[in-house]
Amino acid sequence: MIPVTRIGIVAKIRLHSVASHLVEIAGWLEARGVEPVFEVDTAALAALGTRHRRATREDLASLVDLLLVLGGDGTMLGMADRMAESGQDIPILGVNFGHLGFLTDLSWSELFSALEAVLAGNVRIETRLSLKAAVCRAGAVVTRRMALNDVVITRGALSRVIELSVTVGGEFVARFNGDGLIIASPTGSTAYNLSAGGPILHPAVDALVLTPIAPHTLTNRPVVIPAWAEVQVQPFVADPSEEAVVTLDGQSGVRLEPGDTVSVTRNPSPVRLVHATSHSYFEVLRKKLKWAER
Amino acid sequence: MIPVTRIGIVAKIRLHSVASHLVEIAGWLEARGVEPVFEVDTAALAALGTRHRRATREDLASLVDLLLVLGGDGTMLGMADRMAESGQDIPILGVNFGHLGFLTDLSWSELFSALEAVLAGNVRIETRLSLKAAVCRAGAVVTRRMALNDVVITRGALSRVIELSVTVGGEFVARFNGDGLIIASPTGSTAYNLSAGGPILHPAVDALVLTPIAPHTLTNRPVVIPAWAEVQVQPFVADPSEEAVVTLDGQSGVRLEPGDTVSVTRNPSPVRLVHATSHSYFEVLRKKLKWAER
Amino acid sequence: MIPVTRIGIVAKIRLHSVASHLVEIAGWLEARGVEPVFEVDTAALAALGTRHRRATREDLASLVDLLLVLGGDGTMLGMADRMAESGQDIPILGVNFGHLGFLTDLSWSELFSALEAVLAGNVRIETRLSLKAAVCRAGAVVTRRMALNDVVITRGALSRVIELSVTVGGEFVARFNGDGLIIASPTGSTAYNLSAGGPILHPAVDALVLTPIAPHTLTNRPVVIPAWAEVQVQPFVADPSEEAVVTLDGQSGVRLEPGDTVSVTRNPSPVRLVHATSHSYFEVLRKKLKWAER
Amino acid sequence: MIPVTRIGIVAKIRLHSVASHLVEIAGWLEARGVEPVFEVDTAALAALGTRHRRATREDLASLVDLLLVLGGDGTMLGMADRMAESGQDIPILGVNFGHLGFLTDLSWSELFSALEAVLAGNVRIETRLSLKAAVCRAGAVVTRRMALNDVVITRGALSRVIELSVTVGGEFVARFNGDGLIIASPTGSTAYNLSAGGPILHPAVDALVLTPIAPHTLTNRPVVIPAWAEVQVQPFVADPSEEAVVTLDGQSGVRLEPGDTVSVTRNPSPVRLVHATSHSYFEVLRKKLKWAER
Repeated sequence: MIPVTRIGIVAKIRLHSVASHLVEIAGWLEARGVEPVFEVDTAALAALGTRHRRATREDLASLVDLLLVLGGDGTMLGMADRMAESGQDIPILGVNFGHLGFLTDLSWSELFSALEAVLAGNVRIETRLSLKAAVCRAGAVVTRRMALNDVVITRGALSRVIELSVTVGGEFVARFNGDGLIIASPTGSTAYNLSAGGPILHPAVDALVLTPIAPHTLTNRPVVIPAWAEVQVQPFVADPSEEAVVTLDGQSGVRLEPGDTVSVTRNPSPVRLVHATSHSYFEVLRKKLKWAER
Repeated sequence: MIPVTRIGIVAKIRLHSVASHLVEIAGWLEARGVEPVFEVDTAALAALGTRHRRATREDLASLVDLLLVLGGDGTMLGMADRMAESGQDIPILGVNFGHLGFLTDLSWSELFSALEAVLAGNVRIETRLSLKAAVCRAGAVVTRRMALNDVVITRGALSRVIELSVTVGGEFVARFNGDGLIIASPTGSTAYNLSAGGPILHPAVDALVLTPIAPHTLTNRPVVIPAWAEVQVQPFVADPSEEAVVTLDGQSGVRLEPGDTVSVTRNPSPVRLVHATSHSYFEVLRKKLKWAER
Repeated sequence: MIPVTRIGIVAKIRLHSVASHLVEIAGWLEARGVEPVFEVDTAALAALGTRHRRATREDLASLVDLLLVLGGDGTMLGMADRMAESGQDIPILGVNFGHLGFLTDLSWSELFSALEAVLAGNVRIETRLSLKAAVCRAGAVVTRRMALNDVVITRGALSRVIELSVTVGGEFVARFNGDGLIIASPTGSTAYNLSAGGPILHPAVDALVLTPIAPHTLTNRPVVIPAWAEVQVQPFVADPSEEAVVTLDGQSGVRLEPGDTVSVTRNPSPVRLVHATSHSYFEVLRKKLKWAER
Repeated sequence: MIPVTRIGIVAKIRLHSVASHLVEIAGWLEARGVEPVFEVDTAALAALGTRHRRATREDLASLVDLLLVLGGDGTMLGMADRMAESGQDIPILGVNFGHLGFLTDLSWSELFSALEAVLAGNVRIETRLSLKAAVCRAGAVVTRRMALNDVVITRGALSRVIELSVTVGGEFVARFNGDGLIIASPTGSTAYNLSAGGPILHPAVDALVLTPIAPHTLTNRPVVIPAWAEVQVQPFVADPSEEAVVTLDGQSGVRLEPGDTVSVTRNPSPVRLVHATSHSYFEVLRKKLKWAER
């Protein structure tokens, strides 16, 4: 890991419990010769004076060597997507202020020992495949976005069903009828994909999973495909009253028009997560999914 | 079964292939002293002259002793809901004009022998539990409808998740987080419920099934409850941008407002289906679900 | 509930932690004019003197008005099966000495207030459907047993697959290929059935569920059938090295021979469970399945 | 592909329908300067004279450039395991004599055009990851075998449940309680794994899937892991009457003793399948799983 001289700090929006800690973190970093750069809203949250450098979420990536995210998996997901879109692959360290997250596996009490390890270079950087989704309409790309978790194509709430024609690497897979289709990365495999009956993909698996949501055809089961293959999905809407929507990381929805194609490819620059060397993915799984309880 | 002197005839909307058969059916019935009563659109479909009595879908129930539905399960479902709403329990005979249906298990080639059996009283009447759903807002019922298959409460397409608080017979069951909840009758158990992972309920089982759709909590499994218990569902929407919708038999959707309660009870008068005496529910299951194929 | 003058007491085998409580329970009952009758092994566990009446598990049913079971769901299941086989329908009160059970929903700390309520007649008796399974070979019944949870027909560990031909009420259902079939009561629906993908059946639902175990045909889904219908299962074993086994309540296995038929019917006398009036089935579900946790 | 001068021919045991074709195949090959080498039992099946060279299944790999398997997926699986154990990576061409198989995607009518393409070098060789399983007892390996589909550890038929402690790459995953665990390759993902609720893995995905069978813990979902990681499974058997068994490709079972460890790694030499250049994996999926049917 490269030497760390500036660390960007982003907190979950309106997470007031974090405010009092921000000054403490800034002081701790400065005492070790590292400059904190606060995201604008985060700085406002702590009513920080003008002494500290600030930056918008957009600019942060180009100013820092590492990003510290304080909040939960949602905040982490938002920042990871932004990092991916910036093309920078700044490592991200996530600290949860609620319960253990898949992406924010550190708690507040572990923060300073983790930062200590970061400065000593004694951490593990894990790369996570992220997705690039594009909506193509009449030969032109109308939307292009990154997603760390998943790209989801669903029917509208008042629509009865959608039919999705899917290809992988140009090869026809199937027409899926039902509530929709999830295209999840390993990171996203423990999110919506799991609720819809999909498998867990270890982050080191270079693959995506296609999971149909409430499919009419009961044998339409989740399919794990190589991450290098482009996935293309074409919604087929028979009735003009029906509608289809594409959602990325559960956040931003785009209504699809007849003839649109959603293309999903692996983002060339992965997201980089910073973990304590003792971090175990399976331990997080056991805790989050309560595997040890009877 | 009571003597049959008038038979109502309803065809699927725009099912042109049925048109040529309508005159044939009318002639066959008249030759046996039974008067056909055509639903208005059905009569138009066959360009029938004014010789035959016609009636709207609404009026049909009060005029006939039996209803003949030509089309598929969708047409059957629509008419069954209307019959239930009329409070009449006219038996319904369903004939499919495409592939075998769960409700339209007779094919065109079997129609006349089935009608022969009907007139001879040599048929089996199967009663099917149907559902009565009401949406209550600020103490008043704003919508009340029948459903033979299911009552479904789902999130809007751009909403992330809804939380549904559910009681059965006044007893708290759980809060379900996810895409929604299906409350299905035995008849509806082979429809959306099956896609969402619910079990098949034999029509003679006096029960409903509550099946969560893509639940966050993986242990939220389908629950079969006695049909006599009232189910109440209250959507909890944290964010004003989120929305919840209730749909009956996949047809009519109603947007729910904060504070609304959806109540589902067993409709006191069941739907009555006419079957050939040789009819086997399990045979239809085997054919529809392809149980015999390898 | 009939007046209670004698209470049978059975503890889980080798549950030494219960020993010290047995004298206390006996004293408490005697002080209220109720005679405790100890099951033989239970008496030995507490090194009780000869002052108290004892009885074998077999004889207990005919001597007491109520049975107190101390242990877990397994002990409860064993005694419920025995009660069912005795033909007596003595109510059973279950107290768990570990974690909350589906059948033993009272904890030790609630025991005496529960007994108080029992003597005051202030309890709720819940009846639970139990199953009667018979193995028929060459026209004769070779085994007949009761099961409160389930009757399970599976392949042997070294066999590859079994094929089971199933009828319900004499009507052919399907041939199931796979690891086997579970026929579960509502009580058993939360046991093995749930692991195999079956639904939860509320105890007031008068139905059974047929759940295939790892079926080859992916559309072979669990089917809920009326409890009054007899289920017959015929294993078809192509290869003499293959074997099929029937198990009742996970306890007693019987190897099936070619041509055997397993018949499952509802046991005419149900099992009667004693609950506190405040008892809620759904509350137990929520706790056992951790529905409230995030 | 290297020049093909000798082709081994193996038919399914006792597949009499193939017998008449064997002479035809031999003649066709000889006419093109390719020598057929018959597996011993296959030669006997066709009552071939002594003119043709024969070899045992064991010796075949070292004598030929390509193996032609006539039968079904079971025969193919058996030969693939043998090829893998020989350490030779002879390409295999599978022809089904019943219905379409996942491994035998060619029908008899396509055989000669496929052989034509093989000789012209106009085929696609697909490599399939295979598994190497070892049973370790008291520090020594007592069994070591190859499996193209899966390694399965299950409870004995009369045992109630087994507990399996699993590590991946030396990292503890979880203890799984239930009927057992399937460790499947992509090829095996459409076999037992699919019946047990596991996902489909495209053959180009370099991963395995761990699928628990009827797990007690409902959140124990299938986990897809990188193929380079060693999987170790230790059965924990509390009661001496309980037993655990390991099975490879559904064929050969080995009883496990207390303390045994089952280790599964990727076999260094993959299995090589010969396909027509037009072959589509998804087309086979669609046909086998009937995705196109309504």
